Amino acid sequence: MFYLVGLGLGDAKDITVKGLEIVKNAKRVYLEAYTSILTVGKDALETFYGRPVILADRHLVESESDTLLDDSATEDIAFLVVGDPFGATTHTDLVLRARQKGVPYQVVHNASILNAIGCCGLQLYNFGETVSIVFWDESWRPESFYDKIGANLNRRMHSLCLLDIKVKEQSIENLMKGRKIFEPPRYMSVKQAAEQLLEIVDNRRSQNVPEADIRLNEDSICVGVARVGAERQTICTSTLKSIVSCDLGGPLHSLVIPGQMHPLELDMLKLFTTDQCVIDILNKLYT
Amino acid sequence: MFYLVGLGLGDAKDITVKGLEIVKNAKRVYLEAYTSILTVGKDALETFYGRPVILADRHLVESESDTLLDDSATEDIAFLVVGDPFGATTHTDLVLRARQKGVPYQVVHNASILNAIGCCGLQLYNFGETVSIVFWDESWRPESFYDKIGANLNRRMHSLCLLDIKVKEQSIENLMKGRKIFEPPRYMSVKQAAEQLLEIVDNRRSQNVPEADIRLNEDSICVGVARVGAERQTICTSTLKSIVSCDLGGPLHSLVIPGQMHPLELDMLKLFTTDQCVIDILNKLYT
Repeated sequence: MFYLVGLGLGDAKDITVKGLEIVKNAKRVYLEAYTSILTVGKDALETFYGRPVILADRHLVESESDTLLDDSATEDIAFLVVGDPFGATTHTDLVLRARQKGVPYQVVHNASILNAIGCCGLQLYNFGETVSIVFWDESWRPESFYDKIGANLNRRMHSLCLLDIKVKEQSIENLMKGRKIFEPPRYMSVKQAAEQLLEIVDNRRSQNVPEADIRLNEDSICVGVARVGAERQTICTSTLKSIVSCDLGGPLHSLVIPGQMHPLELDMLKLFTTDQCVIDILNKLYT
Repeated sequence: MFYLVGLGLGDAKDITVKGLEIVKNAKRVYLEAYTSILTVGKDALETFYGRPVILADRHLVESESDTLLDDSATEDIAFLVVGDPFGATTHTDLVLRARQKGVPYQVVHNASILNAIGCCGLQLYNFGETVSIVFWDESWRPESFYDKIGANLNRRMHSLCLLDIKVKEQSIENLMKGRKIFEPPRYMSVKQAAEQLLEIVDNRRSQNVPEADIRLNEDSICVGVARVGAERQTICTSTLKSIVSCDLGGPLHSLVIPGQMHPLELDMLKLFTTDQCVIDILNKLYT
């Protein structure tokens, strides 16, 4: 049996009882290590499970999955995923390949940022499309994520912005020379996401976009979250321009742009700020 | 400490290891019993935890929460919620009241239908707004949920439709006479949801709405899911008109209306049907 087991978001103990039983009895245990990270490392998991864990990078999962799945036809293999197993397309692909090979699979669900973001107090059914904010580089500076947030705002919906993760990246030089040397992992911070968004606001103004069409601007309320579900979870309600100076600590971060808010949601956001300017803006939004 | 602990979706073992530790050490354990249900009952939870569980109905949570929270100032109280604690507005309200009283709270997240729906193979980031389909009665037959699905389809997004739950309802007679006699609980099935949607399609046609504006019709692909995350989970890909004759078994059910699908998503949906007509429709959607 091929088991896809969600680990939730915080630490080793966020696995479910069912998931832990599977891990303890599986022949081999893989940890998917390129679409997300847990706030604890592989070592902490190994200590907690009392058994070795094999790190599965993109190459193993996408190019060498046959070995992994062939074994599952006769043995129990556990494939651990941070959050819920269906958070990333690549895991759906793995399920399809298992089915094509006639390998039975089972899924153990867990929390993911898509539902745990409810911790900031915004109601989950008021969220529009999920937005991904990608790292800009010199030649690639897409603005489509800004427009997605704008489209959600037009429908008065909140936006959950998932921030980019770069793991096992190769520099162009190393890639061209075929050297398997990888850059250090990068996790976009709320500060970086806000900086990119503010730059887009500037771009739009310099393109003479009417102010009414600049739905998200420097004074928009936003909520930065870090390490959701973990003990050192941090939530900060701020404005887009002020959140740039907030240090929310280590990864993973996400950014929420609220749409129209219910008084209950405004009350909740107030719990996460001591900044009187932000409280004043929130107070004006009660209807 | 006031602990809000998510139970996930399946059975007793879907609680996290962290959640189980809290339950075992808490002074009292409440189970919220009116916004969702687990496929196992209170007895199974009590056996698994080895301790009594108090059922918390809407009245207790919304009108008598003071007692519950006052105790939490000095004792550890666990409040168990099916799925994730922030799935329903009422729990956010509880957090706010805890904070107003200066009672510390902690949340243990878990899977909810909002992320576990990924099991049907549709990618979570392609879902638009979540839709709630309510039970119609003689005098109240809203159609707004149909329009929400239509708006998602216009943006090519999938719709997750959460189906109505009626627990501890009173008949109008018993309500007027102040008799605390409750009707049996009702959980909307995929069949009932599809019937209401088909009736709206008929209504729109009789109002001469142009066929192009009837985005969801009897031939639209839909996915019925039942007991997601439980051992007896059932997923059925069908058309809206055919799903009416599918019996997906006991609660809870949800209905998904896919928007534009990626080949990977189409491949996944095919796993959940043997109906050649449905497969033919899916085959035409590959681009």
